[in-house]
Amino acid sequence: MVELRTVKGTKDYSPLEQRVLNDLTSKIIKIFKLHGAVNIDTPTFELRDLLVNKYGEESKLIFDLEDQGGDICSLRYDLTVSFSRYLAMNKIQKIKRYQLGKVFRRDNPSFAKGRLREFTQCDFDIAGSYLPMVADAETLCILHECLKEMNLGKFKIKFNHRGILNGIISCARNTFFKFNTVCSSLDKLDKFSFDFIKEELKTKGLNEEQIEFLHKFVYLKGNEDFIDQLKSKEIYEHPEGKKGIEDLSLLFNFLNSFGILESFEIDLSLARGLDYYTGIIFEAVFDNYKEIGSVAGGGRYDNLVSSILSEKSSVNVPCVGFSFGITRILPILLKINQSKNISNLKVYLSSSGSLLLQERMVVLKKLWDQKIPSETFYNKRFNFNNALEYVQKNEIPFLMVLGEKEIKNNEYKLLYGNKKENKFTGNLEEVINFIKEN
Amino acid sequence: MVELRTVKGTKDYSPLEQRVLNDLTSKIIKIFKLHGAVNIDTPTFELRDLLVNKYGEESKLIFDLEDQGGDICSLRYDLTVSFSRYLAMNKIQKIKRYQLGKVFRRDNPSFAKGRLREFTQCDFDIAGSYLPMVADAETLCILHECLKEMNLGKFKIKFNHRGILNGIISCARNTFFKFNTVCSSLDKLDKFSFDFIKEELKTKGLNEEQIEFLHKFVYLKGNEDFIDQLKSKEIYEHPEGKKGIEDLSLLFNFLNSFGILESFEIDLSLARGLDYYTGIIFEAVFDNYKEIGSVAGGGRYDNLVSSILSEKSSVNVPCVGFSFGITRILPILLKINQSKNISNLKVYLSSSGSLLLQERMVVLKKLWDQKIPSETFYNKRFNFNNALEYVQKNEIPFLMVLGEKEIKNNEYKLLYGNKKENKFTGNLEEVINFIKEN
Repeated sequence: MVELRTVKGTKDYSPLEQRVLNDLTSKIIKIFKLHGAVNIDTPTFELRDLLVNKYGEESKLIFDLEDQGGDICSLRYDLTVSFSRYLAMNKIQKIKRYQLGKVFRRDNPSFAKGRLREFTQCDFDIAGSYLPMVADAETLCILHECLKEMNLGKFKIKFNHRGILNGIISCARNTFFKFNTVCSSLDKLDKFSFDFIKEELKTKGLNEEQIEFLHKFVYLKGNEDFIDQLKSKEIYEHPEGKKGIEDLSLLFNFLNSFGILESFEIDLSLARGLDYYTGIIFEAVFDNYKEIGSVAGGGRYDNLVSSILSEKSSVNVPCVGFSFGITRILPILLKINQSKNISNLKVYLSSSGSLLLQERMVVLKKLWDQKIPSETFYNKRFNFNNALEYVQKNEIPFLMVLGEKEIKNNEYKLLYGNKKENKFTGNLEEVINFIKEN
Repeated sequence: MVELRTVKGTKDYSPLEQRVLNDLTSKIIKIFKLHGAVNIDTPTFELRDLLVNKYGEESKLIFDLEDQGGDICSLRYDLTVSFSRYLAMNKIQKIKRYQLGKVFRRDNPSFAKGRLREFTQCDFDIAGSYLPMVADAETLCILHECLKEMNLGKFKIKFNHRGILNGIISCARNTFFKFNTVCSSLDKLDKFSFDFIKEELKTKGLNEEQIEFLHKFVYLKGNEDFIDQLKSKEIYEHPEGKKGIEDLSLLFNFLNSFGILESFEIDLSLARGLDYYTGIIFEAVFDNYKEIGSVAGGGRYDNLVSSILSEKSSVNVPCVGFSFGITRILPILLKINQSKNISNLKVYLSSSGSLLLQERMVVLKKLWDQKIPSETFYNKRFNFNNALEYVQKNEIPFLMVLGEKEIKNNEYKLLYGNKKENKFTGNLEEVINFIKEN
C-alpha cells in the first residue's frame, strides 16, 4: 500500500490556489516586462559543487540527489546562484532578467507560516556595471510597483546595507571573519527577541561588550533624515560603513525621482541570512499582514559571478535583485479571492428533451472556434433544473439550451445573468455575437 | 574550481528560447481554458513507493533523492501519476485539469532529438465516468486545436487502442502476462526496424510464428473504412479486441461531429511504452517535422487511480489525457521565430547634451505607470548615434530623446519607425498618447 500523501514539507495546489497564484505571477511578470526584463530558465538541479559555500549556515538544508552514477547533483536552493552560473558560463556582462521556479530547502516546514520545503520563487535581477545605485533604485522601484499592484494595502520596504552592518560589526571590535555568522544571527531578529540572539552570539564567541554595541544599533530605524544621524556616528569612520551610508543617501535621491520615497525605511536590524550579499539588502512587508513576515527580499551581490568563474578571475559582473516568495502570499490572497468560476467558463450548453449528444458537440465546437470558453455535460441524463443550478453555483454567465425544435429551426435559446427571466433567442451566429458582446 | 556547466542531460533556456516557449505554452493553456479546464500543481518529488511499478521497463530511469533522513523520495517521472495520486488523495471523481511542470528521466540524453533528462510537460486530462468515448473525443479535439494553433503546417494524430493490441497479442497465442513487455518493444517501432524489434521479442520468449503474426498487423494503418476491415479479422472475436474496435468506431463518429476527422489515422504499430494505458492511445506528428517524432501523446488510463487507492478499492476514476512535450518542439519554433525585441520594449529613453539621469528617471516612471514598456541607459556616457543604433538593432519602435531645453519647455521629442525622419513632438501627455495609439 502506498501512503496517500505528498512528501513532508510539500503540498499540492488546488484549482482555486493555482488560479490565485497564476493571477499573481502574471501581474508580477507584466511589471518585469514593463521594465524590459527578459526571461531565462535553468535546471531544477545543479552540480553539487556549485552550491557548496554559497549559503553559509543554511547549506545543511540543501536537498541532495542520490549518486546513481554520473554527475553528483543537488536540488537548487535558490534561483540566484543558478543565475550567476548562467552569467559566468555564457560570459554575459549585462542583462535584466526574470525567472520563475521551484526551489528546495530541507527546513523545518510550517504551512501556517508559509514555510515549505518546496516553494516557488519569482526573481528579478539586473546584472551589469552601471552608475552607482541606479540599478538598485530601479530594482526597488519594480518591487514597489509589484507590491502596489497586489492591492493588499500599505506596505513597507525595509532596507539596510552590508557595508553599514560591516561597519557596525567591525566597530564592535569583532574580527572580520565572523561577519557572516554574526549576520546570520542578526537575521533572526524578526523571529526572536534580542535576548535569544544574545545567547547565540555568545556561543559564537562575542563578549558582553561587543553584543551590547550591536544592541545599540540594530533597533535603529529611519528614513532620509536618518542618513545624517548615521554620518555623525562612529561607523562613518569605517570605510565600508561610510560607503554604505553614502550609497543609501544616493538611493534616497533616486527613489525621490521615482516618487516612491514614502514606502521605504532604513532598518539596521535587517541582515539577510545569505552570504553572497555585498551592498544594499531589503525586505518587503505588508502592514496588514505582518504575521507572515516578508513577502519579498533581495539585495546587491557583486562578487557571486566572479567567485563562480574562479577565485582569481578579473571579470566581475555586479548584480542586484530580489525574490518574490509567491507561495508565502497565498494564504492572504485566498482570504480575499474566492472566485467560484475558477475556470472562467462563459457558456454552459444543455439540452432539453433528448440527449442530443452529437448535436451539442457540433455547437460546442463552433463556440470553441470563436474562443468562447464553453462546456457541456457528458452523462446520460441531465435535466434543465440541474443545469440552472450548475450555472448558478459556478457563476457561469450563459446557459444555452438545445432542443430538437431549436436545431430544426436554427433558433437557439440563451439564458443569462443567472436568471430564468433573461432570455435571448436567435440563430447560432446571433447568439454567438450576443455572448461576445455581453 | 567549479565546473562551469549544467548537469548532464539538462540545459539552460536563453531569453529567446524562453520567449518562444512562453508564447507556446500560453497559446496551449488558452485552449485548455476554453474547454473549462482548471489548473493544479503537485510537488516536484513524490514518495518513491508511489512511482514504483508504474512505468514498466522505464522504471530504472527514475531519479532518486538521497536519503537524508525522513521520507524516501524520487523526482517525478511524469505528471500523470502525481495527478492520479492527487485525485485519490482528495477523493475527486470528476475534473478537467491542466498542469505544466518539469519531469525527470535518467535517459540517454540527445539534445538534437529533443530528449533531455529534465524537460517540461504540459498535460491535459479529463477524469470521470462519462458516456463511452466522449471525453476521449474532446481530449483529441483539444489536442487538434493546440496543434492547429501552433501554425506548423499539416499534422497527423495517429491512434490505436490497448484493447486491439491486446487482441492482436492474444491471438498471437502469447500469454497475457507478457502484454506490457511486448507493448514496450512495439513502442520502439518508430525508432527501429522490425528486424531489430524481432530480436528483442525473441529474447522476451516469443517464437518465430508469434512474431510473424504481430508483424502482419503492426504496419496496418487507416481511417474510418479501416474499422470495417478490422471487424472482419480474427481479433474482433477476442472480447478486448472487439471492445477496442467498437470504441474507435464510436470515436470516429464524434470526431466527425467536431469536424476534425481528416487529421486522424489508426496506426496499429502505435503502442506507447507506459504500463498504465487501458483504452485509446495516441501521438501527434507534424508532417514537416517528422524527424523530431511525436510532439504530444497520451491515452486512456482507467485503473491508475484505483490502483493507487488500494488493490481492492471499489472506487474507480477513469481518465483520459495527453502530454505536450513542450521542449521537444523548441528547435522547430526557434527556426521560424527570431524576434529581436525579445522583451517587447516599446520606448528607449535617451538624452542629448547632459546625462540628465534623475530627469530621465522621472519620465521613465511616468511611462511605466502608463504600462508602456520602457528602458533607458544607466552608464555615464551615451551619444545619440549609439541610441539610434540600439533601437534599430533591437527593433524598439520608439526612441525618446530628452534635453535640458525640452524639459524646460515641457516639449518631448519622439523618433519612431526606426528612422530619424519620423518625428513627433509634444508635451509629455501628448507623447504618451501618441505612443499608446501607435
